[in-house]
Amino acid sequence: MEIVLEKKLVITILILLSGLLNLYAENGHSLWLRNQIPKQVEVICSKQSETLSIAVQELKQNWQGNPGAEVTLSIKFNKEIKGDGYILDSSGVQANTDIGILYGVYDLLRRQRIEQPTKELISNPSYEIRLLNHWDNLDGTIERGYAGKSIFWRDENEILTITEQDKILWQEYARANASIGINGTVLNNVNSSPKMLEIKTLQKVKAIAEVLRPYGIKTYLSVNFSSPAVLSGLKTSDPLDSDVIKWWKNKVKEIYTLIPDFGGFLVKANSEGQPGPQDFGRTHADGANMMADALKPFGGIVMWRAFVYSPKEKDRAMQAYSEFMPLEGKFRENVIIQVKNGPVDFQPREPFNPLFGAMKKTAVMPELQITQEYLGHSKHLVFLSTMWEEFLNSDTYHQGKGSTVARCTDGSIYPHKYTAIAGVSNIGLDSNWCGHTFAQSNWYAFGRLAWNNNLTSEDIAAEWIKLTFSNKSSISDFNDWQEHFLLPVKKMMIESREAAVDYMMPLGLHHIFAGDHHYGPGPWYAPPNLRPDWTPPYYHRADKNGIGFDRTQSGSNAVSQYHEPLSSQFNNVNTCPEEYLLWFHHLSWDYKMNNGRILWDELCFRYENGLNKVRGFQKVWDKVKNYVDEQTFTEVQSKLRSQCRAAQMWKDGCLLYFQQFSQMPIPYDIERPVYDLDKLEKMDFTKD
Amino acid sequence: MEIVLEKKLVITILILLSGLLNLYAENGHSLWLRNQIPKQVEVICSKQSETLSIAVQELKQNWQGNPGAEVTLSIKFNKEIKGDGYILDSSGVQANTDIGILYGVYDLLRRQRIEQPTKELISNPSYEIRLLNHWDNLDGTIERGYAGKSIFWRDENEILTITEQDKILWQEYARANASIGINGTVLNNVNSSPKMLEIKTLQKVKAIAEVLRPYGIKTYLSVNFSSPAVLSGLKTSDPLDSDVIKWWKNKVKEIYTLIPDFGGFLVKANSEGQPGPQDFGRTHADGANMMADALKPFGGIVMWRAFVYSPKEKDRAMQAYSEFMPLEGKFRENVIIQVKNGPVDFQPREPFNPLFGAMKKTAVMPELQITQEYLGHSKHLVFLSTMWEEFLNSDTYHQGKGSTVARCTDGSIYPHKYTAIAGVSNIGLDSNWCGHTFAQSNWYAFGRLAWNNNLTSEDIAAEWIKLTFSNKSSISDFNDWQEHFLLPVKKMMIESREAAVDYMMPLGLHHIFAGDHHYGPGPWYAPPNLRPDWTPPYYHRADKNGIGFDRTQSGSNAVSQYHEPLSSQFNNVNTCPEEYLLWFHHLSWDYKMNNGRILWDELCFRYENGLNKVRGFQKVWDKVKNYVDEQTFTEVQSKLRSQCRAAQMWKDGCLLYFQQFSQMPIPYDIERPVYDLDKLEKMDFTKD
Repeated sequence: MEIVLEKKLVITILILLSGLLNLYAENGHSLWLRNQIPKQVEVICSKQSETLSIAVQELKQNWQGNPGAEVTLSIKFNKEIKGDGYILDSSGVQANTDIGILYGVYDLLRRQRIEQPTKELISNPSYEIRLLNHWDNLDGTIERGYAGKSIFWRDENEILTITEQDKILWQEYARANASIGINGTVLNNVNSSPKMLEIKTLQKVKAIAEVLRPYGIKTYLSVNFSSPAVLSGLKTSDPLDSDVIKWWKNKVKEIYTLIPDFGGFLVKANSEGQPGPQDFGRTHADGANMMADALKPFGGIVMWRAFVYSPKEKDRAMQAYSEFMPLEGKFRENVIIQVKNGPVDFQPREPFNPLFGAMKKTAVMPELQITQEYLGHSKHLVFLSTMWEEFLNSDTYHQGKGSTVARCTDGSIYPHKYTAIAGVSNIGLDSNWCGHTFAQSNWYAFGRLAWNNNLTSEDIAAEWIKLTFSNKSSISDFNDWQEHFLLPVKKMMIESREAAVDYMMPLGLHHIFAGDHHYGPGPWYAPPNLRPDWTPPYYHRADKNGIGFDRTQSGSNAVSQYHEPLSSQFNNVNTCPEEYLLWFHHLSWDYKMNNGRILWDELCFRYENGLNKVRGFQKVWDKVKNYVDEQTFTEVQSKLRSQCRAAQMWKDGCLLYFQQFSQMPIPYDIERPVYDLDKLEKMDFTKD
Repeated sequence: MEIVLEKKLVITILILLSGLLNLYAENGHSLWLRNQIPKQVEVICSKQSETLSIAVQELKQNWQGNPGAEVTLSIKFNKEIKGDGYILDSSGVQANTDIGILYGVYDLLRRQRIEQPTKELISNPSYEIRLLNHWDNLDGTIERGYAGKSIFWRDENEILTITEQDKILWQEYARANASIGINGTVLNNVNSSPKMLEIKTLQKVKAIAEVLRPYGIKTYLSVNFSSPAVLSGLKTSDPLDSDVIKWWKNKVKEIYTLIPDFGGFLVKANSEGQPGPQDFGRTHADGANMMADALKPFGGIVMWRAFVYSPKEKDRAMQAYSEFMPLEGKFRENVIIQVKNGPVDFQPREPFNPLFGAMKKTAVMPELQITQEYLGHSKHLVFLSTMWEEFLNSDTYHQGKGSTVARCTDGSIYPHKYTAIAGVSNIGLDSNWCGHTFAQSNWYAFGRLAWNNNLTSEDIAAEWIKLTFSNKSSISDFNDWQEHFLLPVKKMMIESREAAVDYMMPLGLHHIFAGDHHYGPGPWYAPPNLRPDWTPPYYHRADKNGIGFDRTQSGSNAVSQYHEPLSSQFNNVNTCPEEYLLWFHHLSWDYKMNNGRILWDELCFRYENGLNKVRGFQKVWDKVKNYVDEQTFTEVQSKLRSQCRAAQMWKDGCLLYFQQFSQMPIPYDIERPVYDLDKLEKMDFTKD
C-alpha cells in the first residue's frame, strides 16, 4: 500500500514537472509536434529505406497508444490506395509507397495525440502535388514574409556555406511538412532572380533536396523567363528560338543530374514587370510548353501562374480569365495553370477566380496564400482555413450543381495527368517559424486541406489546438480543458477571418490597403503617377453617389465570366450575396440592406463589429492564461493588442475617409473614431 | 401684404446670412464676447474717464435689451457696494468706482445675452484682488503653456519692439478679463529671470500696463530673489543686508515711477531650485517682509508662494504647512501667502492644502491652475470649475462647521487688509487664446469664481455655453437648442473633471505622470538619479502588498495637519472619503470597497469608466455638429479623439503597471488593454 502511494506520488511529481516544463519552456519551435514521453511499441517493417527508418523512429519516439502494442508497416499494392495514400487498421499501416507509410504513421500518432479513434480507414490525398511556395530571395529576405528571414537562403556571395544547423532546420521543416502531407516545395520567390539557375545555386538546391527527400518532399524552383539571355548572354529568351530551347533543355538536364527527383518550375511571366513570352510576341502557352518539353523526359512539371493584369484593361479582376481562357487546351499535359483563389489578389474576401471550372482542357491548380500579406501579417490572429474552405466549396456550376472548386481541381470532374495545390509559405527563421503562434495553424490547415479538401475548418482547428496546446500529461481535467480552452479558442479561430473582413473591408470591399506594405488601411492611397490599378480608389470607387466596383453587365461585365446561375445571381443586386455586394455593384450610400439598414450605416456597423470581435478575442485569450505556457500567452496577448489597435485604425480610417463621400453621420450607437483622418493618412502602420 | 412678406424675406435672409457667418467664420478669438448686431441704446454718464468711455462704448456696441432704452451710469458712494462692486437696477448701473461701472455694464450685457432677468441686484467681489499668473518667459516661451507663445514677450534682445498688433491683442486680453472681473495680472513666470527687473524690461511692462489700465487691470511681476546680486553685482541678496534692502527700495521706486498703479511682486523662493532667503539663513518672513516694506509706500503687495518642498522630508504633502505655520503672524500686512489648492501640485484631485483655515494671522490666497498642466494640456476637455468649486467649498472646520476654504480666504472669517485669488493662465498666441475652445471656459470660470466664490459650476457652465455658442440670431428654436445643445454639452462639462480623475488617477492616486511633460501616464517613471519626490513611485507606493501613500498617524501623519473632525476622518480608512482613499492610505489589493468590489477591481473599473466617459463625450459632441461652426466643431472633435486615445493609454499603462504588483486579472467584463506596457513606457505621449 505504501509503495503504491509512493509510486503515485512519483508519477504525480513527474506529471507536474512535465507540466511545468511544458508551461515554461515553450518557444513554439516544435509546432504541432510537441514532445511527449513515449510509451513502448513494437514496430514490424520488412522493407528498409530512409523514409521507412523515419517512420519507425517516429513511432518509437512518439507512441501514445497501448504500451507494448505491435505495429506492422506493410508496403503492398492495393488499388484502393491512391498515390501516397494509406490504410490504417488494427495491425498498423499499409501503403503502396514508403512515403505512404510515413503519412500513415503521422496520422496514427496524431490520432493518439488528439484521442481520435483509429478504426479501419483509408486515406487518399485530394491532390497529387501539395506544395509550399516560398517567396524567398537569394539574399535571405522574403517577399511578404513576416517571420524573419529565409530558412534556405542567406547571402548570395556565400551561397554554398551550409552549416549543420541549416540542415537540422531543413530536416525539422521537412518533418513538419511531411506530418501534414506536404510533398513539394518551391524554394524561391516567383519574382525570381536569374541567378537561381547558376550552378552554385543549384548545388545548394541539391543539398536542400537531399535533406528533404527522405520526408517525401520534392524541390521545385521559380525561374526567370529571361534566364537564357541574362545568365548566358543569349541574344533573346524567345521561347520559339532554337538556342533558347536548347538552353533550357541543357539547364534542365544539369538540374536533374544534381537532383534526380527535381519537381519542376514555377513561372511568373509577363506579370508585374516580370519577363515572359509576350515580350517576344509569343503566348503564355508557347512559353510554358517550351519549358514543359524540356522537363517532360524527367517527369518534371511547369506551374504557370495566371496572375497577370495590365493597367490598360478596364477591370483587373477579369484579366486572368480573359488572357488564359483562349489558350485552354493549348498547354502540354505537364503544364498546370496556377490560379490564385480570387480574381484580384489574396484579399480578405473574394469570390473565386472564374477560371476555376471554366478551364477544362488544361489542368488548373489553386494558389492560396498562407503568409498573411493582406490579413494582418504575423500580427493578426486570422485562421485562414475558413476562407479556404469557403473557396474550395464554392460551386462553379460548370458541370452542373456541385461543381465545386475543390472537385474542379482535384480530378473529380476534369481528369488531368496532374492535380496540385500550392500555398505561399509563412515560414521564416523566427523561433516559432511563423511569427505568430496562431499562424502555425494556417500552415497546418493548408497541409490538411491539400491532403483532404473535404475537411472542415472546425475539425482542423480542433486538431491543431489539441496538438499544439494540449500536453495530456499537463492537463489534469480534460473536460475542463475542453470547455475552458479548446472550445473558446476554436470559436475565436473560426470567427477570426470574418472579423478581419469586417474591420478591414466588409461587404465586398477589396484592396483598400495602404501602399506597399498592405498592413493598414489606405482607401485614400493614390500617388499621382502610380498606375491606377495599384491604388485603392480603383477598387472601391467611392464618390458622392455611392461605393463599390460595378462589375455587372452595365459595368465591367466581370459577372459574365461566371457560369449561370452565378452570372445572373451576381449581376442582380437583389440576389448578389451581401458579402460580395461591393465587389460586383456600385451602390448608393442609402441603398437598403436586407436587415433594413442603409448601406452607409451597415458599413459603419461592420467596421465596429470587426473591432469589437477583436476585443472579444482579447478576452478569450486573457481567460485562458492558465492553460498556456507563459511565453506563448504573452506573445499572443501582445499580438492581439496590436490587432486591436490596427482594427481601430482600419475602422477609423475607412469610415472617416468614406464619410467624406457619404456625407452622413456615423450612427450614434457606434463608438466614435479616435483618430483623425489626416493623422492616419500620414501614419506608418507597420511601426505601431 | 406683399411688402410685409418681402420684409420678412429680407430679414430671414439676413438672419440666415448672419447664421452662416457665425457658423463658418469662427476661430474662437472673440471668446465669450461674440459680436451681435446691437440694438439702439441711450447712455447717460455725467463723469468722464477712459474706463467710463469703454463702458459707454460696450453698451452701444452690444446692447441687446429694449431698443431705444435709456441707461444711466452713476458713480456715487453707496456703503452696500464693496470695492469695485456695483448695483444693477432699472435705471442702469451704479458703483463707487469707474471700474465698478464697467463691471456692471459687462454684467448687464451678459444677462441680456443669456436672457437672465436683471431685477435689482447688488454684486460685490468675493476677493479684492483677482489675478492671473502668467508663467511666461522673456523669450516668449510659456512654462506649462499649451496655446502658443506668450502674448507679452517675444525676444529678449528686442524687448522694446512693440507693434500695434501687440497693443490690440493686449487690449482684447484686458477686455476679456475685465468682462469677468479679473483685475490683476502677473506678467511673467514664477521661475523668474532677474532680467525682469532690468530697465528696458520695465519699460515694456509700462507699455503693457498702459493698455491694461483703462480696463482696471493692474500689472504685477514675478521677481527673482537673487536679483540684487545677479543684476547689480551686489555681493549678496540677503534680505537683512542693508545694501540689499536699499536695492529693492530703489528698484520699487523705479518701477512706480514708470507704473504708478503697479500691483506688486509674486515670489517663488527656495522652491525647486529658485533662490530665496533661506540661502542666507533667513526665513520666508524675512524675505517677504523686506520686499513688503519696499512696496508699502506705494500700496504694493507681496504674494509669497508656499509651494516649497525638499526631498529630505518624508512627505512632500506636509511641507508647505510645516514650513509656513511656524511663521504665521510674522508677515507684514501687505504680504499674502499664495497657496496652491492642494498640498502637492495641481493634481486632478487633491484634498485642500491644510494651510487653508489653519493660517489665521497672515493672509492666505488660493492659487489655482487654469492651464491644464496635469489635466491633459490643451488637448483634453476638462472643465475645472467643478474642481475649484469642490475646493472652495471644502470645510476646514477651523472656526467650526462651515469654515470653508472660500470663507477662510475671502475675509468672511479672517479679516486681513487684502484678500486675493490667483489662477495660472492658460493664455497664449493661439488664435483662440487657449488652444482648446473648452479651455476658454476655465479662464471664464476662474474669473467668475474669483468674483463670486458662491457660484455653482452648473451656472457658470450654462453662462459660458450660452455666451460662446448661442448667437441668438442663428438659433431659430431656443428650446430645441437648449435641449439638444446646452443641456448635453453642459452635462459633458460638468462630468469632465471626474472623468479625467478616473482615467488618470482615481481613488486618491496622484502624481503618476510621465516625467517632465505631465501629459501621459508614468507610474513607472523613476530614473536612477532623480530625486524620489519627483518620481511617481514616491506617490503611489505600489508593491505586492498594496497601493497608496500612508499619511495616517501610523504613516507620515499628514492627517494631523487637518482640523478635527477631518483629521480623524481621513485617518480612519472606514470614514475616509473614497476619492481620497489612496491619498491617505496604503491598502491591500483586495481591500473591500463600499460597493463590495475589491480595490484592484475597483481601480480597473474606474479607469474603464474614465475611458468610456470620454467616448461618451465624443458622442455628445458629434451629435451637436449642426449647432456649432465648422472650425470649432472639427477642432473639438479632433481634440476629443486625442483625449480618448490618451485615456486609453492611461488606462492601459496604469492597469498593466499596477497589475505587476497586484498579480490579479483585470475583471473580464472590462475591455482589455490594447497597448503593451513596454511600448507605453517608451512612448512620447505628447506626440500622439
